[in-house]
Amino acid sequence: MPATKKTASSTIKKKSSVKEKPIILITNDDGVTAPGIRNLVEAVKDLGKVVVVAPDKPQSGMGHAITIGFPLRMQKLDIMEGVETWQTSGTPADCVKLAVDKVLHRKPDICLSGINHGANHSINVIYSGTMSAAIEASIESIPSIGFSLLNYSMEADFTGARKYARMIVEQILHKKQDRHLCLNVNIPSVDADLIKGVKVCRQAYAKYVEDFDERKDPTGKKYYWLTGEFKNFDKGKDTDVWALEHNFVSVVPVQFDLTNYELKKQLETKLKF
Amino acid sequence: MPATKKTASSTIKKKSSVKEKPIILITNDDGVTAPGIRNLVEAVKDLGKVVVVAPDKPQSGMGHAITIGFPLRMQKLDIMEGVETWQTSGTPADCVKLAVDKVLHRKPDICLSGINHGANHSINVIYSGTMSAAIEASIESIPSIGFSLLNYSMEADFTGARKYARMIVEQILHKKQDRHLCLNVNIPSVDADLIKGVKVCRQAYAKYVEDFDERKDPTGKKYYWLTGEFKNFDKGKDTDVWALEHNFVSVVPVQFDLTNYELKKQLETKLKF
Repeated sequence: MPATKKTASSTIKKKSSVKEKPIILITNDDGVTAPGIRNLVEAVKDLGKVVVVAPDKPQSGMGHAITIGFPLRMQKLDIMEGVETWQTSGTPADCVKLAVDKVLHRKPDICLSGINHGANHSINVIYSGTMSAAIEASIESIPSIGFSLLNYSMEADFTGARKYARMIVEQILHKKQDRHLCLNVNIPSVDADLIKGVKVCRQAYAKYVEDFDERKDPTGKKYYWLTGEFKNFDKGKDTDVWALEHNFVSVVPVQFDLTNYELKKQLETKLKF
Repeated sequence: MPATKKTASSTIKKKSSVKEKPIILITNDDGVTAPGIRNLVEAVKDLGKVVVVAPDKPQSGMGHAITIGFPLRMQKLDIMEGVETWQTSGTPADCVKLAVDKVLHRKPDICLSGINHGANHSINVIYSGTMSAAIEASIESIPSIGFSLLNYSMEADFTGARKYARMIVEQILHKKQDRHLCLNVNIPSVDADLIKGVKVCRQAYAKYVEDFDERKDPTGKKYYWLTGEFKNFDKGKDTDVWALEHNFVSVVPVQFDLTNYELKKQLETKLKF
């Protein structure tokens, strides 16, 4: 793996005589106590040394927010047996930054985020706190994978998600990868036996058509709740939405270079100054 | 322009007998009272009907956060002569959603965001509240432009930024554009006369190398301030960072499809399940 070791960690000693276990950093956006992150830890904990650094509260919809203008807090917890666990007051992206600089004192070999309670396919990748942590890691040249189960319930069944998360992490860990590798993995919410396999996909152009529910508070002042209906404008069979609708696990490789190269070419001749 | 009119607005009446002025929605992430947004309004207000819907407080570094789990507030202000102005308790992306659904009752012809106090070139586009508003509009098929001046001061001189913002908006408004057009425009902080022109660029791989400043509060508990040094790892002369260092205004066309197509092709043959 292409991880760069900055300094030796106080907690993760290098053992020159035996092959080092890979360091697996795990974070999420539902908070450190969410069932999803516990399921992810359980799914991969024998594949390396797992360290958890996750938000102390739910951070869904935080997009790629970082905390500037306020300091951050961090606290060690004893909630997962045999797994070093920290909670922070920051966003998922802050958690990755804090983990590298203040917990691990080096880059982990891989960063996993999730398992999110709810879908992060199609345009959701833009709003997703889960994926922002994975993208943050990938900017830092740490291969990363975000996992999401298409079920918002805290009582969701993670059996299928755990099985496929483990299979994917094993394959990514054991082969040399692009240093900016970042995968957005979504798992259908069906019995593990009904999942047909894994499909590498592109991000569908599917999004929420929004509306605000207008209400009045007890003093008569208006307030607005975001609501919306999910609509798929993209019928491609190579999309994540198609794969999930057909009971496949979707894997979308994600990039942080937002340049629209096609439009760049057009504008180079079109704009005149 | 490809704007879809959902319903006639109560405030923006359609006049069938005269050519309608384009509706220009303006937002930002520094808050509705920031000098940057006032300068943007002044720069373009005779090019169409300007409506401002912006956050009631600074929202820098908010990335593409949206507000879920809390309701939003919105209030009409009388702070810019002749310009309908609203402040909301939401993020920049929320402001665009509220503007379309609750203020304009239709899509504007263009959405402008900024002028941001500070750089949004290179990787900053990912963390930027300014650009998240522009990207949100582009997802909604509203052509959009985010503007940023490379000067964090509230007393910054916006003369050059205003001049180029106006030139770019004029060109984009007067030609048919891609319905998802989204431009990330950065303006160097030099005298307007020293700006050499405009360059269409790609996003540089340049980023902050972070560190946390560890301190102790009066009770002895640790807290952490995010700090960092900006480093450019990308020497390409086609990048936004290069253009800005050479006193050009940089224009990067931005996309919301995060699929890494090159990696997708590799993984299709590499991953085995």
